[in-house]
Amino acid sequence: MIKSYGMRLETPKGFRDFLPEAALRRQLVLEKMTNVLSLYGFDPLETPAIEFAETLKGKYGEEEKLIFEFIDRGGRQVALRYDQTVPLARVIAQYPNIPKPFKRYQIQNVWRAESPQKGRFREFLQVDFDIVGSSSLLADAEIVEIITKVLGNLGIKQFQVLINSRKLLVELLQKAGVPENLVPGTIASVDKLKKIGVDGVTAQLKKRGLDEQKVKNLIDSFQNAQPNSEIKELFKIFNLLGVRPLNYRFEPTLARGLDYYTGLIFETEIRGYSAGSVCSGGRYDKLLGQYSGSDLPATGASFGFDRLLEAMQEQNILPEKKTRTQALITVFSSDLLPKSLEVSSKLRSANINTEVYLETEAKLDKQLKYADNKGIPFAVIIGPDEASKSLATLKNLTTQEQKQISIEKLISELSN
Amino acid sequence: MIKSYGMRLETPKGFRDFLPEAALRRQLVLEKMTNVLSLYGFDPLETPAIEFAETLKGKYGEEEKLIFEFIDRGGRQVALRYDQTVPLARVIAQYPNIPKPFKRYQIQNVWRAESPQKGRFREFLQVDFDIVGSSSLLADAEIVEIITKVLGNLGIKQFQVLINSRKLLVELLQKAGVPENLVPGTIASVDKLKKIGVDGVTAQLKKRGLDEQKVKNLIDSFQNAQPNSEIKELFKIFNLLGVRPLNYRFEPTLARGLDYYTGLIFETEIRGYSAGSVCSGGRYDKLLGQYSGSDLPATGASFGFDRLLEAMQEQNILPEKKTRTQALITVFSSDLLPKSLEVSSKLRSANINTEVYLETEAKLDKQLKYADNKGIPFAVIIGPDEASKSLATLKNLTTQEQKQISIEKLISELSN
Repeated sequence: MIKSYGMRLETPKGFRDFLPEAALRRQLVLEKMTNVLSLYGFDPLETPAIEFAETLKGKYGEEEKLIFEFIDRGGRQVALRYDQTVPLARVIAQYPNIPKPFKRYQIQNVWRAESPQKGRFREFLQVDFDIVGSSSLLADAEIVEIITKVLGNLGIKQFQVLINSRKLLVELLQKAGVPENLVPGTIASVDKLKKIGVDGVTAQLKKRGLDEQKVKNLIDSFQNAQPNSEIKELFKIFNLLGVRPLNYRFEPTLARGLDYYTGLIFETEIRGYSAGSVCSGGRYDKLLGQYSGSDLPATGASFGFDRLLEAMQEQNILPEKKTRTQALITVFSSDLLPKSLEVSSKLRSANINTEVYLETEAKLDKQLKYADNKGIPFAVIIGPDEASKSLATLKNLTTQEQKQISIEKLISELSN
Repeated sequence: MIKSYGMRLETPKGFRDFLPEAALRRQLVLEKMTNVLSLYGFDPLETPAIEFAETLKGKYGEEEKLIFEFIDRGGRQVALRYDQTVPLARVIAQYPNIPKPFKRYQIQNVWRAESPQKGRFREFLQVDFDIVGSSSLLADAEIVEIITKVLGNLGIKQFQVLINSRKLLVELLQKAGVPENLVPGTIASVDKLKKIGVDGVTAQLKKRGLDEQKVKNLIDSFQNAQPNSEIKELFKIFNLLGVRPLNYRFEPTLARGLDYYTGLIFETEIRGYSAGSVCSGGRYDKLLGQYSGSDLPATGASFGFDRLLEAMQEQNILPEKKTRTQALITVFSSDLLPKSLEVSSKLRSANINTEVYLETEAKLDKQLKYADNKGIPFAVIIGPDEASKSLATLKNLTTQEQKQISIEKLISELSN
């Protein structure tokens, strides 16, 4: 009935499996992140993986070529979600009755046809959070506050949110004499400063058509740049919020590659982690108007979940859990199976994650070894002796200690 | 800097947005489901959305044409995840060191190019759970037990798991004289019995090449079918597990469309819900061998999450929550903003989900109306009077009652 195939045992490059240990780790980190987002009044939003291609195009500047795009069976030109900001913009326009300010988080995969390399994948999870419908600096400040709270709750101690303003950046560009039509390209190049250095950016800017003098002007003006009034005001609010000065700084060369930012922009550096920003974003007051027809201010940021995990791994602060299962109930024999099932049912009723060994004729050693391999911390043994006395033997698989106890005691010990 | 586009404000047909209220509802239902799965020792697994097309093809029988398939920029023939069983099979072969039996759940979207209609979407969530590496009937019994526990915990009272065996079905087909080469097609047709009725199936079978007499034989043998020893043994285990006889029944015409089942098969009917099974699955002992080269027994099932939600909605037992936010802290004026920020910081430290109103000059009425629209149950007002006494006014937005209380009391009231 089943046809046999010679199968590739792999996923395409840049795509990953998360086996239970990795998937659990991700769940535990995500729980901490969504807890913070809920604490600040953000609720979840989900959008589909597939959008009309035209919904996504014209938003991502030079990165647009990385969109996964294809024609579906019905002949529709569609594309996989590339970020969560553009789908948010569509949602805001499509459902005008959503109460504003709208605070939502969106935790979904995005797909980009990047060249896969260390820390860069073609499918990756973004943890986005945005406030739509407020032009208040309080909103921007809250976004940064949340970044600091999330990183703090994850145990990351040394980090800084880099802060700049697109308005200030455009001003600097204008002062340096960069013509209007070269502004977007110049921003895209300045954004690569960390990646390709001053020389690299200089070369790119010349190629884009800026002459030597203007490039020099530009670099000078970055060196002498001071926070504008917007940034100064933001820093005052940080003070009110208790955001520590250690955790942010003004960075005039911060540019952000995407086209849609209009005001404050953010990136987040973790000390000692070199792969780049773990949380970036900013204000984009003009993007939503492209869909809804009338401008609606918005600000937000997005955690690169994989980078965050990588940075935590480097600092040895990743939560470790091989399984959520607390106890394996071993099975002594077919005859005693009902006893093992009875105990596991009681443990589950007490909310204890419990696995029953699924074969009735396996040696105890084999069963204990299985529990150990899986990382289950406890085993419960119910042999003829225990069964006759309505007791169970609880074995701690880390310390190898074991003791015969009542089922009541078993429940209370495993509940801790 | 931003190009303007005439945008479609919609997603392609069969694709959906989940606004916060719907997304929260889904989260609440999923939490209950994963709690049960964890209780039984299942841990999460995640696989990528994109696989090589050849990994998926040849597994789904006549449904294969529904796979979303395309050529990526690198010229690779790829496909979107169509179910979670085939990716599981790949994972098992690719990582041979995973301890067995392997109990995993996988909660991810799948994509199928179906004709969208009521309750049928092109992107939908499957809640899969499988046990790999055990041929024990205990494993099959546990799968059914979990189905009954999940439905029970969700508040669904009247449901039945329909049970049959592919072995019994093939036997019936052979007895009726169905030639070997027509067995898969006949199973696919019998599977549609509920959808297209006896006449529809009869017509299909004739078209497939079965003569009138054989079709008649087949229908007779279904009418007289009795559980085989496997099914009888399963029912004995149900008895041990406390699975109630009301919640399952032998159904000889149950076929399941997919090619890969080899033993017991399951579907789940909710009384009064007509759109079909909300949880289906079965044993597939030969699928994994196609990847790993040696057979590895497996059994499992999959909840159709959308159908489940639809059935719950019809019974009015869906959890309702417009927001997770517990309180809106209003802002009286710029001067008193620090007070409002201070209180919200204290509430958040006490783990209370708290939103601060983000404008400093809005009228109180407007702020309260916003909280009400969003479904936030409480508002906290800190005016000059409250600020001078270090108190706050707590307003219950459902009852409209309000009272001035200490911050300590505020925390304890909002914690409940």
